[in-house]
Amino acid sequence: MTLGFDVQDKTVPRRKPGARRSVVILGATGSIGTSTADVILNSNGAFDVVAVAGGRDPIALAKVARELGARFAALADPSGYDALKEALQGTGIKAAAGREAVIEAALQPADIVVGAIAGTAGVEPTYAALSAGRTVALANKECLVCAGAVFIHQAKAMGTRLLPVDSEHNAIFQALGDADSDTIEMMTLTASGGPFRSWTAEAIAKATPEQALKHPNWAMGSKVTIDSAGLMNKGLEVIEAHHIFGIEAERLDVLVHAQSVVHGLVAFRDGSVTAGLAAPDMRVPIAHCLSYPERLTTRARRLDLAAVGQLTFERPDFDRFPALRVALDALRTGQGLPTVLNAANEVAVEAFLNRRISFHDIARLVEACCEAALRDGTAAEPASIEEALAVDHIARESARTLLARGEGFGKLTTC
Amino acid sequence: MTLGFDVQDKTVPRRKPGARRSVVILGATGSIGTSTADVILNSNGAFDVVAVAGGRDPIALAKVARELGARFAALADPSGYDALKEALQGTGIKAAAGREAVIEAALQPADIVVGAIAGTAGVEPTYAALSAGRTVALANKECLVCAGAVFIHQAKAMGTRLLPVDSEHNAIFQALGDADSDTIEMMTLTASGGPFRSWTAEAIAKATPEQALKHPNWAMGSKVTIDSAGLMNKGLEVIEAHHIFGIEAERLDVLVHAQSVVHGLVAFRDGSVTAGLAAPDMRVPIAHCLSYPERLTTRARRLDLAAVGQLTFERPDFDRFPALRVALDALRTGQGLPTVLNAANEVAVEAFLNRRISFHDIARLVEACCEAALRDGTAAEPASIEEALAVDHIARESARTLLARGEGFGKLTTC
Repeated sequence: MTLGFDVQDKTVPRRKPGARRSVVILGATGSIGTSTADVILNSNGAFDVVAVAGGRDPIALAKVARELGARFAALADPSGYDALKEALQGTGIKAAAGREAVIEAALQPADIVVGAIAGTAGVEPTYAALSAGRTVALANKECLVCAGAVFIHQAKAMGTRLLPVDSEHNAIFQALGDADSDTIEMMTLTASGGPFRSWTAEAIAKATPEQALKHPNWAMGSKVTIDSAGLMNKGLEVIEAHHIFGIEAERLDVLVHAQSVVHGLVAFRDGSVTAGLAAPDMRVPIAHCLSYPERLTTRARRLDLAAVGQLTFERPDFDRFPALRVALDALRTGQGLPTVLNAANEVAVEAFLNRRISFHDIARLVEACCEAALRDGTAAEPASIEEALAVDHIARESARTLLARGEGFGKLTTC
Repeated sequence: MTLGFDVQDKTVPRRKPGARRSVVILGATGSIGTSTADVILNSNGAFDVVAVAGGRDPIALAKVARELGARFAALADPSGYDALKEALQGTGIKAAAGREAVIEAALQPADIVVGAIAGTAGVEPTYAALSAGRTVALANKECLVCAGAVFIHQAKAMGTRLLPVDSEHNAIFQALGDADSDTIEMMTLTASGGPFRSWTAEAIAKATPEQALKHPNWAMGSKVTIDSAGLMNKGLEVIEAHHIFGIEAERLDVLVHAQSVVHGLVAFRDGSVTAGLAAPDMRVPIAHCLSYPERLTTRARRLDLAAVGQLTFERPDFDRFPALRVALDALRTGQGLPTVLNAANEVAVEAFLNRRISFHDIARLVEACCEAALRDGTAAEPASIEEALAVDHIARESARTLLARGEGFGKLTTC
């Protein structure tokens, strides 16, 4: 098993306090990007935004580029170039579009690159930034789930590091202190349990996209919200944690915690436990990463435990939430299975949102793709980003084929 | 205001892993001492016990000295010398008794001195150890409540440090990481709420010693258990935290948390909160201090949050628990009031245990002593241990006088 960072390696050099930090935001128009912009705009000039990159919305990208005073704006969708250029006219902000443009944004010299492009589209530009030696504040799950060993290897080789923006990983990162890996008995990521936490298995199986999109605590993009509803999201996060903290599957645990206040915990061999908590507000971990190892003052919501009153914890129910089991199995099996899992899951979630399959079928389709990959020998551990994306591609094809067949993996029911 | 440590000053040198650490245990026969012995006996030979000191029980002291293979045993009570000497015959363990003997134990060369003598009796020997440059694992509250500024000044002057054994302070210490003091918005100590957490003010006022001694979560000595029942204990701990972490009263908070699982929290200016948790087992913070900055493997109880199920948090009720208000007022007023508070409280708790005053009267007697000290000008901030002990002495006399008068501070009712 290729482990990631030694958890004690928090050797980011201390900067002169008050020095402006230069930032690139990849995924500036999404949910994390918007929160990042809010943190920067309320940071009293602590940051200098070098470049922003977005996906398909030239108007939104131009808006955030102007607000942040960025010098370069890159849109992934080449067809949006003219609109972007027009929207930025007279601002002096350079406009570009296409895959290469996003990578150009990622490679702008900067102290920190926020990797917040959603989905597998984030893998290449984030990897480019890492390979150029940038510190990356990572909000994109797919980088580590699809190509975790490759990312960690490259981060080590470049002597740079990945700072976790996900609230659970950021909480664990903060709770770790300067802990030695071998003093850790268990790392626990909490899961809100999503909208179906108290639903029966039968009700969950028949859930509609509208029901699955109603997350009780977090406002997020639709992909991650659906992942949360089935606990697949937590499985992906455990895989992330494995890579970013260099901790094997056996020392990674999940607890359902409906209030989303305690985001992550670290249990040590002396019986001590440290935890990271915060109100469910992504500006908290974003600000932490942007200013690490210093700390910004933010206007993020403050946690008031007396007002919350009660925190609950329960073991996850693998019967009602099979996606979590499928993800943990993929991590334990290793090889390229997490890559397959991630790819198949993206196809499955899209099919669910398009009402082609039931909620229940998401985990079933993903599991069938994992089994097929093992059977076909297409699940070798990727040794490069290219290999990871090739495994990803094959897995998506496999998922689409199974979907098209409709019954290729047992009792897939279209609804 | 004299502040204590800069919280980021965790500069204990790293020892060669596996090297045996030499230990002196002051208060070896008490509750913390017994837990310390348990940790050491189950540490796989990680410690070399140089000396142990106890109060009045020569047989118990001889027993722990033999079990731990100590080389020197000192009993505070000189009348127990013969019994101690006899009990240690043939062991090669040197026996001594009296105040000077305890200080001799404190001054034995050692890597760490556990300061676990209960009450004001612990002040002198603990201060001696600190003044000799020893790292002190501090379990005695009175040192910092009675003479906090003096202890912190001396620790800084000697370039040594105090490691907090109290579960709340230890939790905060672990949650702090390498935080800069100015990034901290609030430090919170939790309180179980004790046996009277849900009682009415009227019922608490009339509580018997038997009722007050029934602590729901912790098995501790009777003094600290009574302190816990009225939340005076939490007030003393806030004063301790002020000194040990160098944080002013305005950034110190108390939350009632009945399950005693989250012991302390640190809220940062970016909205992040870190917390220290553990099952209520003193072996956890003791082991943490003994091995800091390494970590022992202990057989202490492990925290199982899913088994605990639910954690509750509420604001303390100053009307039902006036002792907490009195203690926080003493900290805010400053000068020598915490010293007066501590001394008067010891007298008051003893009077309560002897059924001379009601539970309600404890806080009232302490407050009356604080007011008298302010009025009489006997509450100047002590600049030395001698001055602190002199203020302590006067406050005890004042408390005893009020007690003898029976109605000297309002409506003191003997029961």
